[in-house]
Amino acid sequence: MNRQALIAQIEKKKSVLCVGLDTDINKIPEHLLSESDPIFAFNKAIIDATADFAVAYKPNIAFYESMGVKGWESLGKTIDYLNESYPEVFTIADAKRGDIGNTSKMYAEAFFNAMAFDSVTVAPYMGVDSVSPFLAFEDKWVILLALTSNQGAFDFQLTENTDGEALFETVVKKAQEWATPEQLMFVLGATKTEFLERVRKAAPDSFFLVPGVGAQGGSLEDVLTKATNKDYGVLVNSTRGIIYQSKDRDFAEAARGAALKLQQEMQRILF
Amino acid sequence: MNRQALIAQIEKKKSVLCVGLDTDINKIPEHLLSESDPIFAFNKAIIDATADFAVAYKPNIAFYESMGVKGWESLGKTIDYLNESYPEVFTIADAKRGDIGNTSKMYAEAFFNAMAFDSVTVAPYMGVDSVSPFLAFEDKWVILLALTSNQGAFDFQLTENTDGEALFETVVKKAQEWATPEQLMFVLGATKTEFLERVRKAAPDSFFLVPGVGAQGGSLEDVLTKATNKDYGVLVNSTRGIIYQSKDRDFAEAARGAALKLQQEMQRILF
Repeated sequence: MNRQALIAQIEKKKSVLCVGLDTDINKIPEHLLSESDPIFAFNKAIIDATADFAVAYKPNIAFYESMGVKGWESLGKTIDYLNESYPEVFTIADAKRGDIGNTSKMYAEAFFNAMAFDSVTVAPYMGVDSVSPFLAFEDKWVILLALTSNQGAFDFQLTENTDGEALFETVVKKAQEWATPEQLMFVLGATKTEFLERVRKAAPDSFFLVPGVGAQGGSLEDVLTKATNKDYGVLVNSTRGIIYQSKDRDFAEAARGAALKLQQEMQRILF
Repeated sequence: MNRQALIAQIEKKKSVLCVGLDTDINKIPEHLLSESDPIFAFNKAIIDATADFAVAYKPNIAFYESMGVKGWESLGKTIDYLNESYPEVFTIADAKRGDIGNTSKMYAEAFFNAMAFDSVTVAPYMGVDSVSPFLAFEDKWVILLALTSNQGAFDFQLTENTDGEALFETVVKKAQEWATPEQLMFVLGATKTEFLERVRKAAPDSFFLVPGVGAQGGSLEDVLTKATNKDYGVLVNSTRGIIYQSKDRDFAEAARGAALKLQQEMQRILF
């Protein structure tokens, strides 16, 4: 998907909501466990219930991988369902991959060809040749880790170099030499409020994928006032705040209600 | 596997050889393509041919993931075969994972429970809570990226902080606060000869997984004289130099010959 199509969808739905699909067999409603593929059944119901309000979906690959071959099948069905039933939504393989060139190429094959995701999250530690193989696919995106939402972000991402530049800023600066904002986004944790404007300044035209609103404590209002740009420029992820609102038969309805509430808040602040 | 068992195996085989299983359907001998699972058939033959000389095996997860469900099946069969037929060898899931705590926990489940690898390679960018879930498993190991073998390593890993410490050194220093050398190794690229001694100094007791000898240009002699310690302290990986020595029916024999040659070189220098 190209940038124009993403922006058009944001304007149509008046939303920058991304729904995280961290689907855990131990957390989904019990009545789904009798389905032949409970994980896919859950995802399908959540997607159908929230697609009016969400512009992106982000399966967290670890949750599928932890279930082995079965999980990999559920993931494949989920991305196929999204592409067939909701071709307008932006899809993110939250995989945090990154390796030497010939290996990153294989990961790109996995997420862009074997499965047809629009984007994949990538870790920057190994540098340019670990990122560029993902950029060789037209209208496919790299979402590079810059400043993450977790506590461990403080261990290395804020280390300052001799110019007083934090590592996350070096990453954001350097990566923009590798790709344009038509193919490159950054991960920016909503929990790091004091840095939202600093990252926006370092990458004025880029989209940011923003996790950490809700369960992790980030403020939606802060993100939407400090990290946006003229093209909106953010995709705000919510996972636990949407998909696990109810463990009962009304789980999809409850997810729809939570997604609507977030969309309304986004519409109030952004549009 | 614990550290003592790993060292005992090194002494028995007089080898620190790790064989990389970056198995690519486009590179394996044609006659294997008629097998029901060509990838596993190739891996099994390579393992049987080289296990006298190798102390570790390292499937590169990207190569399996790029083949979807089928690849995941081949990977599962490979780790099961290693554990059943060669329980003394050390197994490495070369996955370069790392995410927020609840997600790293799922990756740990994938590689330590759903499959029974001894270790997994982990990227440090997200800090302590992205690494620690992997450390919660007894006798399982984290192999943390420090200084990698590729060109892109120069982009961020050598960035110096205000104390003149390179990022890879900060990583090595900090990570040793999180785990002991009984559970933590580091990746150290053989191509960065000038840094081998510097990393050894920063982590005197740790094992290093050393890629980059052979096709990538690193020198075995340099690694074995500059990066070792009293417990040997290195696992030297070779992939293309072993598994793709022949595309014909003699591929396993050719792999055995190449592994023997490396083992003899190791014996000459180290024992």
